[in-house]
Amino acid sequence: MITLELIKELAHPSPTRIVLLVIDGLGGLPHPATGKTELETARTPNLDKLAAIGVCGLSDPVGSGITPGSAPGHLALFGYDPVSFNIGRGALEAIGVDFDLQPGDVAARGNFCTMDKAGLITDRRAGRISTEKSTELCRLLDGLVIENVKVFVRPVQEHRFITVFRGGSLSPEVNDSDPQQEGVAPRVIAASSPEADRLAGIANQFAARAQTILSRHHPANMILLRGFSRRPHFPAMTEIYKLKPAAIASYPMYRGLARLVGMTILETGTSIEDEFRTLTQNYSNHDFFFLHIKGADSAGEDGDFTRKVRVIEQVDSALAGLISLEPDVIVVTGDHSTPAVLKGHSWHPVPTLLYSKWCRPDRVKEFSEAACVAGGLGRFPATQIMPLAMANALKLNKFGA
Amino acid sequence: MITLELIKELAHPSPTRIVLLVIDGLGGLPHPATGKTELETARTPNLDKLAAIGVCGLSDPVGSGITPGSAPGHLALFGYDPVSFNIGRGALEAIGVDFDLQPGDVAARGNFCTMDKAGLITDRRAGRISTEKSTELCRLLDGLVIENVKVFVRPVQEHRFITVFRGGSLSPEVNDSDPQQEGVAPRVIAASSPEADRLAGIANQFAARAQTILSRHHPANMILLRGFSRRPHFPAMTEIYKLKPAAIASYPMYRGLARLVGMTILETGTSIEDEFRTLTQNYSNHDFFFLHIKGADSAGEDGDFTRKVRVIEQVDSALAGLISLEPDVIVVTGDHSTPAVLKGHSWHPVPTLLYSKWCRPDRVKEFSEAACVAGGLGRFPATQIMPLAMANALKLNKFGA
Repeated sequence: MITLELIKELAHPSPTRIVLLVIDGLGGLPHPATGKTELETARTPNLDKLAAIGVCGLSDPVGSGITPGSAPGHLALFGYDPVSFNIGRGALEAIGVDFDLQPGDVAARGNFCTMDKAGLITDRRAGRISTEKSTELCRLLDGLVIENVKVFVRPVQEHRFITVFRGGSLSPEVNDSDPQQEGVAPRVIAASSPEADRLAGIANQFAARAQTILSRHHPANMILLRGFSRRPHFPAMTEIYKLKPAAIASYPMYRGLARLVGMTILETGTSIEDEFRTLTQNYSNHDFFFLHIKGADSAGEDGDFTRKVRVIEQVDSALAGLISLEPDVIVVTGDHSTPAVLKGHSWHPVPTLLYSKWCRPDRVKEFSEAACVAGGLGRFPATQIMPLAMANALKLNKFGA
Repeated sequence: MITLELIKELAHPSPTRIVLLVIDGLGGLPHPATGKTELETARTPNLDKLAAIGVCGLSDPVGSGITPGSAPGHLALFGYDPVSFNIGRGALEAIGVDFDLQPGDVAARGNFCTMDKAGLITDRRAGRISTEKSTELCRLLDGLVIENVKVFVRPVQEHRFITVFRGGSLSPEVNDSDPQQEGVAPRVIAASSPEADRLAGIANQFAARAQTILSRHHPANMILLRGFSRRPHFPAMTEIYKLKPAAIASYPMYRGLARLVGMTILETGTSIEDEFRTLTQNYSNHDFFFLHIKGADSAGEDGDFTRKVRVIEQVDSALAGLISLEPDVIVVTGDHSTPAVLKGHSWHPVPTLLYSKWCRPDRVKEFSEAACVAGGLGRFPATQIMPLAMANALKLNKFGA
């Protein structure tokens, strides 16, 4: 089996450059009226040209039938087996709002909720209060210090927020306070290992203080915490691949994931053109670029077939500039499929193309789900994309004599 | 997962015959002028006929993006996972010059080098002395006996030779004397485990004796040793597959690899026709033949597209005679790709065809990289070739009731 250890042994630095262009949620399903997917509907002359001179296939981010979240989808693209490299829910949520989680920190997901006078939860989501309201309440809770542990509280969306406990090395083995049902009281947070006693005590005190502070803010008069976890320690791409990798992403979650594997985060704007411009401006400083396009996934999640088509067409236009930089390897893929007809992530394999001077072109002439079935890369695990890109950039030594 | 243990459980002897024809470095890349690979350029009516009535696919010797050396490439073809079945560098080099390495032996790779009066290495390769000169010097060092251990020294090429220490069971856990740089003295060989103390002492004495013997042979006035290792113990093909396997190879490295997995080595000549004739002459004595053709790889390594095409055409011609023997299973593949445009081994998957009365033919009508993409075998690990060949020879029992 090809392991990261093997790749680390074989990888060597070189002046060649790799661009990994991730169109989030790229894969789709046919529109009932036309029988064509979003990608098949979009006019994509540049992607089609790359497909014609490159090699195509369909990648499985996690495995057949498995619908990936954003984290496993991206970890696979970076070459990390998404089943063994796990990120706790609290840590992932903190990463998702660009919180700079430190090694000793413990993060938890939080909900504002409604509690009645008897102390029972009547609404786990506090009537889905607005993000503005939630932001205001988070400010009331943020910055408490309990037994020398500082508690950070940051809004996420509507009733959702994150809490991060910082102060020495805290152990996260405690249960959720969120009972995941209404009509009962919040659970007392208890340690499941002796090392976590300290965090359990502090988290319970924090919940009690929050209850006092929020008492006049009905319906958001209490909090629920879950998914206590630490920032995972992953081997860095710099060490495995000997790359100088950079990430360009307008959404915090993807910057956070890139940071976890040791990429440098480049500041960028919010549009597709901004992101491509950032790549051009930083082209000489790095030899690997992860360029993340969020819009296709958002449109798919909204069930907006036409908008997803438009995002793909915008990426195709911006691609011309990237191609003119002549990177040694260009990979275009997604972290999973998000068919508009399903209004969510799906398990379908993801159209993937790889272009390099040294790829073996197949007979695929256009970039689409249907064409990729007949591609030279075949159907393959997304974790193979990085070794393939590295090989095509002539950055991997021969294995064995 | 399919393991050798499972195959061993299911395998049974039978009168059917399998021929595994390995065209070393078979896979290629398109010639810039024609867009066709070496195999696509070659006129191969016999291979095309086999492809049409057989089933085709693309095999990965080690894995996506991994460029295999000859040893891992062949181990995969014999059904052994090339990442877990490892061969030490010294042992591989000894095998490569057809040295009959015994279980207790320790082999090391050697270089003649140049040392100055202060004892510092000034040229790690002794000015790349000729193979003739090196052969002569090896004769001076060969056959020394130190503490009841006999030291064999055999030339490889130019400044390179092998040393084999024989005498009881020697432990190979010692460091290289080769410091891999110039301007420093050769390293003293030290044991990294107590069991290896004896070998370390003997190897140091050997280096000292070599220095004395070579003192008048400047620039080759010293030796450097590295990669101390023993012959690995692999389960034999006779036991796993219950076959009577024979190897036909004009190059010593491939005979050595075949010997490691328990094949009988058949004497043969140097031409492709010689090798096919050897198969015909021994056809009744074995039920498995590994027939190795070196020329395609050598041509690819030399960047000689036309010569590689010619070698493939020669194999195709010789194939007619093999087909007329009506083997039950014929597999044609390579141990890796060696595209002439890359002048070396590469990571690209290898065109593979399997013909038997019981294969399920696909729609592939010609043997080529592009056609194999659409083959019924799909894209698959090369370690699956042996189980497939065994099944098609009706030599594997049903698994489970």
